[in-house]
Amino acid sequence: MRIPLNRQSSNPLYQQIWSHLRHSILSGGFAPETRLPAVRELARDLGVNRITVETAYAELEAEGLIDKRVGSGTYVLPLAVPRVASGKTSDREWPIWQQELASLEGQSVLSPEAMLRAAGHPDPISFAGGFGDSRLYPAQDFRKVLQAALRRDGLEALTYGASNGLAALRGTIAHVLASQGLPVQPDNILITAGSQQALALIAQLLLKPGDVILTESPTYSLALDLFRALKLSIVGVPMDEEGMRIEGLETMLQRYHPKLIYTIPNFHNPTGSCMSGSRRRRLIVLADRYNVPVLEDDFVGDLRYDGRAQPALKSLDPGGGVIYVSTFSKMLMPGLRVGFVAADGPVYDRLVRFKRVNDLATSNLVQHALEAYVTVGRYQAHLRRSCQAYRKRRDAMTVAINRHLPADVVFRPPQGGLFVWLTLPEGFSAENLLPEACGEGVNFSPGKAFFPDGRDGDRCLRLNLAMQRPEEIEEGIRRLGAAMKRYAVSRVRDSKNSA
Amino acid sequence: MRIPLNRQSSNPLYQQIWSHLRHSILSGGFAPETRLPAVRELARDLGVNRITVETAYAELEAEGLIDKRVGSGTYVLPLAVPRVASGKTSDREWPIWQQELASLEGQSVLSPEAMLRAAGHPDPISFAGGFGDSRLYPAQDFRKVLQAALRRDGLEALTYGASNGLAALRGTIAHVLASQGLPVQPDNILITAGSQQALALIAQLLLKPGDVILTESPTYSLALDLFRALKLSIVGVPMDEEGMRIEGLETMLQRYHPKLIYTIPNFHNPTGSCMSGSRRRRLIVLADRYNVPVLEDDFVGDLRYDGRAQPALKSLDPGGGVIYVSTFSKMLMPGLRVGFVAADGPVYDRLVRFKRVNDLATSNLVQHALEAYVTVGRYQAHLRRSCQAYRKRRDAMTVAINRHLPADVVFRPPQGGLFVWLTLPEGFSAENLLPEACGEGVNFSPGKAFFPDGRDGDRCLRLNLAMQRPEEIEEGIRRLGAAMKRYAVSRVRDSKNSA
Repeated sequence: MRIPLNRQSSNPLYQQIWSHLRHSILSGGFAPETRLPAVRELARDLGVNRITVETAYAELEAEGLIDKRVGSGTYVLPLAVPRVASGKTSDREWPIWQQELASLEGQSVLSPEAMLRAAGHPDPISFAGGFGDSRLYPAQDFRKVLQAALRRDGLEALTYGASNGLAALRGTIAHVLASQGLPVQPDNILITAGSQQALALIAQLLLKPGDVILTESPTYSLALDLFRALKLSIVGVPMDEEGMRIEGLETMLQRYHPKLIYTIPNFHNPTGSCMSGSRRRRLIVLADRYNVPVLEDDFVGDLRYDGRAQPALKSLDPGGGVIYVSTFSKMLMPGLRVGFVAADGPVYDRLVRFKRVNDLATSNLVQHALEAYVTVGRYQAHLRRSCQAYRKRRDAMTVAINRHLPADVVFRPPQGGLFVWLTLPEGFSAENLLPEACGEGVNFSPGKAFFPDGRDGDRCLRLNLAMQRPEEIEEGIRRLGAAMKRYAVSRVRDSKNSA
Repeated sequence: MRIPLNRQSSNPLYQQIWSHLRHSILSGGFAPETRLPAVRELARDLGVNRITVETAYAELEAEGLIDKRVGSGTYVLPLAVPRVASGKTSDREWPIWQQELASLEGQSVLSPEAMLRAAGHPDPISFAGGFGDSRLYPAQDFRKVLQAALRRDGLEALTYGASNGLAALRGTIAHVLASQGLPVQPDNILITAGSQQALALIAQLLLKPGDVILTESPTYSLALDLFRALKLSIVGVPMDEEGMRIEGLETMLQRYHPKLIYTIPNFHNPTGSCMSGSRRRRLIVLADRYNVPVLEDDFVGDLRYDGRAQPALKSLDPGGGVIYVSTFSKMLMPGLRVGFVAADGPVYDRLVRFKRVNDLATSNLVQHALEAYVTVGRYQAHLRRSCQAYRKRRDAMTVAINRHLPADVVFRPPQGGLFVWLTLPEGFSAENLLPEACGEGVNFSPGKAFFPDGRDGDRCLRLNLAMQRPEEIEEGIRRLGAAMKRYAVSRVRDSKNSA
């Protein structure tokens, strides 16, 4: 089978293959029951890695366009009719309002997690997640606390709470923040369903479609997804090792008149950098001068391994200009989905009311248990243990990268947090490297997803330093190095073939 | 003290008093430390109920404008400066973007719950809640299940789950719906944080500010709050005992071009009525003809005491025109905050993705426990027990209303659900009756809050039939009758005084 491939394209190879086959199927070029070539065969014909073809096939199968029959082969399926309840088939199309929703859908892309699964390595190592090591979560402790909360609070744990959250938990959070140098009143704290909901509530309350939001570039990919879903206009501020490059900020404020500045000043996701103290003060001054609220996302600020903490933006702000957001998810237990906002001024009540109409209140049960668990002492103890473990892992990853990856890979070991940000040498594409890496049994988060314009960042990738133990990190980075070698070799071979 | 009161106004008396005093304080007419009249004194001077004055004072105190000093009196406080973190006082105003948020704030009004508390009756009986009787929740059973889920699923219960929710729980829900005559695929079910989040996601995904949404009039007050927060234009369709009056619907569709129809076809909140079968079919036909999605809110449809269930709108729809929403909150345990959407077609994936950027996923822990608990058998058993108990309470309320309230009160005992909807005789205002009722030690939900235009409904009120035991219902309705008598007497006296 001939499929034209452009190896210089920014579109990864597996996506080009998938796209070509998909078009052939949907346009009727391949009749139902057409047998597609075996993976090895097509990979050989196209001169690509087997995993690249498997990834394309996996995507087509997920969409219901092809069917892998064991011992038989891969076949094109008849085009699906709209599924209707109780398995009725019907030629009826979806209502027009539904069809309009479908046409707006972007291309679906296999996640790094799914791609690693599809590759089928017996012992896969993932560096692509966004959280800590679930094996370190205090599951036993928390279970006891949950049981005790149920016994003690009984029925009250099973009812709705106040819209802004359990008073006792807000008080505990206020203590924790105060111990970190950020004094906040409990009545200026709002409990949310993770920091994601905090971002969603704030963005939806303060901005409308078409408004400009300023973010770091790169930044947290799910924040970008949220802002796009809200039809905001995203403008990215470049970064360096000290965080957002503040020197160009005033010009951008004058040019774009943003309605919100979204920043991750500590252990930035994905770069791991921290905003310097002088830049923090400058940001506060400019935001105040130009009347722009600042959303400070401190999702993992207390996971520090070296160096000294800079003051929170909110503690530098004289009053009301900064909305502070954090979460227990990265540090403690993501499944709890508990985050919080700290905000002063009229915006606080507006956020509480907007939270209320969105989902009434965060579950009382979970808040009760969390309040019982997060006394300042126990939280600090867990923090210390996590930092100890993750510091070792950060070190192991640093050593492994220096040992196994090419010398011209650029990275800077972070002083805290969950991520290491790599810039690959020239000629490498993180998106095209990913299937190779999955074939070796390791994955990562390709950099493009973290950039507002979606085009930059293909030479960058993000590694999660926390999820794996040191020996798994060593092996995983070794595999990544092997994948890079194979990638480089195939590039040389391709350019020889094209010459 | 002279405060001009207009007893014919649609503005309740306590609100007129509060508003007058508030203005005097904010405008500087009352200097700080001015001593306000004692409650009894002012009530006597104005010719109103003591509770009416207490309510006004309670609201001023909640806002921080006055201070009740035990043994001394009630004093005007200095106008508050903006609170700043760590108790610093500051003359600095809030940033301009914050001040704009404050100016949009509507008048705050004491909730019926708060008013009952403020009245200080030693044995208050509330008919104002939106849920079932927490004393009937299966707390013990659920506790065991939660513990077992933690033991069995261990760490997995403490991580994030799929955006659309735990597969096993979706499967269980699919079984429950199928047993109720609504076959849905598990992969067309999305778990949400209660039905409130389902409403919020759907409304925000499908509509933009200024779009028209059609609702029943009256309807669920928190849905109205949500639609207003989203700046939608709300058009209400009148109702009768058979639900939404469909005969006028086509004209409204042609005139207003709504982007969504929001309906509660079973045991409607607040009226308790059910949409007839023929009207359901007509609604489906019209919605399809005019290409308008239907949001079917079935929050309490399985709490049936008499009569026969009508088919769900979604089961009457050939495919994709109806989005079905329900919840475990009203029936089972509100504090869990677990609801779900059942939807076919492209809208499903869009909702899942929008849910994801809003709060990633609903807590795995809670879903695991719920899945273990809600096997079809245990759910049905709990449903039966609840229906038995609530049927008795519905009957007790019917008897009590007939016994204690005036004969010209209009109501229709519902066939299921949580609410009884009363229309008071001419001359009564539910808003003005509420403080009287609280004085007697009982409350209710005044009708105005359930109407889109906020002006209708002052002769109506909603009673929760499920929260109290039969003997508490009897006593509570007796108190309501007493309050109505006092209200009628004071009206006669006032009109004599004005004459």
